[in-house]
Amino acid sequence: MRTPATHAQDGLPAEVTIWEVGPRDGLQNESALVPTETKAAFVQRLVAAGLPIVEATSFVHPRWVPQLADAGDLLTALAAHDALGDAAHDLPVLVPNDRGLDRALELGCRHVAIFGSATETFAQRNLNRGHAEQFAMFAPTVERARAAGMRVRGYLSMCFGDPWEGEVALDRVVDTGVRLLEMGCDSLSLGDTIGVGTPGHVRALLAAFETAGVGADRLAVHFHDTYGQALANALAALEAGITTFDASAGGLGGCPYAESATGNLATEDLVWMLDGLGVRTGVDLDALVDTSRWMAGELGRPSVSRVVQARA
Amino acid sequence: MRTPATHAQDGLPAEVTIWEVGPRDGLQNESALVPTETKAAFVQRLVAAGLPIVEATSFVHPRWVPQLADAGDLLTALAAHDALGDAAHDLPVLVPNDRGLDRALELGCRHVAIFGSATETFAQRNLNRGHAEQFAMFAPTVERARAAGMRVRGYLSMCFGDPWEGEVALDRVVDTGVRLLEMGCDSLSLGDTIGVGTPGHVRALLAAFETAGVGADRLAVHFHDTYGQALANALAALEAGITTFDASAGGLGGCPYAESATGNLATEDLVWMLDGLGVRTGVDLDALVDTSRWMAGELGRPSVSRVVQARA
Repeated sequence: MRTPATHAQDGLPAEVTIWEVGPRDGLQNESALVPTETKAAFVQRLVAAGLPIVEATSFVHPRWVPQLADAGDLLTALAAHDALGDAAHDLPVLVPNDRGLDRALELGCRHVAIFGSATETFAQRNLNRGHAEQFAMFAPTVERARAAGMRVRGYLSMCFGDPWEGEVALDRVVDTGVRLLEMGCDSLSLGDTIGVGTPGHVRALLAAFETAGVGADRLAVHFHDTYGQALANALAALEAGITTFDASAGGLGGCPYAESATGNLATEDLVWMLDGLGVRTGVDLDALVDTSRWMAGELGRPSVSRVVQARA
Repeated sequence: MRTPATHAQDGLPAEVTIWEVGPRDGLQNESALVPTETKAAFVQRLVAAGLPIVEATSFVHPRWVPQLADAGDLLTALAAHDALGDAAHDLPVLVPNDRGLDRALELGCRHVAIFGSATETFAQRNLNRGHAEQFAMFAPTVERARAAGMRVRGYLSMCFGDPWEGEVALDRVVDTGVRLLEMGCDSLSLGDTIGVGTPGHVRALLAAFETAGVGADRLAVHFHDTYGQALANALAALEAGITTFDASAGGLGGCPYAESATGNLATEDLVWMLDGLGVRTGVDLDALVDTSRWMAGELGRPSVSRVVQARA
């Protein structure tokens, strides 16, 4: 099995954190229901492959995402598994609102994420309220989570472009992100939800956050490969000092031949690049590829990850 | 139809040249024979879309690449077409050996390319002679081409890794490339034939050429997306001063689900990034996407280009 040669590049961090989103952001787009035990095995295998953070599921209402209706059962199954046990409660879970947080608290979760929008239209469509109103919705959730000692990540979607509004102004993104941090989020994940961003745009946005006093240490990047830019954008972010990268095992998260392909950056392709750059991730690429190949078999279609394809 | 927002990045060139290889490097991997008139339409549409250099075909022996057995007929058809006329003779053609050059000369071609190997094993397999012996084979071809006033590009394959030998030493690549330049090639295209390279490796190789006195102005890069690294590698090369990039419309050049996927960097995905960076290419992305969608229809399968997929 091939591996990349290592050629370090000046100015890069010695190690980075990959935040694996496949079980949540990936599977939520699958229409055919995946059995809970399959999801549990997926999460466990990802943890065993060395992914330091694996976002497990979302406490979204089953009406919106039927695929994740088993979120509670999944967490219970993970916590009951020898390989994880209490550590299952450190796996991040998405809580779209206060009701979601209630469920996360009941189950003993210690790490949650909220999902905000940088744009008005997506806030309306995804959150069912305006951009300005989202803060009032999230504030009590974040406050309660922090009071319970939880870590809280703030996802910020549509940071580069919006399907209805086009380009999103940098200061709009920064202002929204700063509000989420001031509210109590300990970090932000900047999402290129529709995958239109390019490396100069990435650098410009990160520079704008820096100017606003938000350093790279409080930011993660979350790229989609809709237009093939995800890994180049990750490289730009890495060079700009980012050390947390969202990625999805096997590129789960969208169909490559659908009208609006929305696949996440494939974790394997990211790890290949980082391995080549000599940037440590702790991930065992062979074990990760095996996991994604197995999951592709469960889903009944090939992985969109180039690394997984090449090794198949 | 979406377009990337433009955010320039310091230190990048104002414009670059895309060397389109789809009709040659892409189609040569297609087993089902494509009609000559379809190939001619493909080349014409690529030229019309603004691609400044379109490599048209190869005078390889039909026994090795039956798909390109119509090379002479294709060039004749292109030269007879109103939209190209004599300019068809400026389209580069690959000449694997002296016999191929004879045919290019007969047809009035003014731009040819030879195809060397940085490694011993690939030289043996692709050229049927050793690494050292390739120079004796190419020397008279290049000499005659130059004497005829032709431009001569030297492709250098396996610059990053070799399927049989693993990593390829930087000095091996540089030494081979310098030999090809000294022989009379006016430029080199550095190929990551199996797609294993990563951005640090790209920078290291380009720096090694610089040290040997070969500047970025005499080099092009030719990346394959086998492991998903092609566009990130192109970004690294761009930042290192490269201004000529090989790419293949629609990512033609390999099946994504084959055992060794060898797809070229998709021209559309490269143009998207360059448009976003404000680096001029002269390419009309809409016209290019239309061309690749049409060609995908002719080939009976979807394009692997993410941009083409997203706009389908």
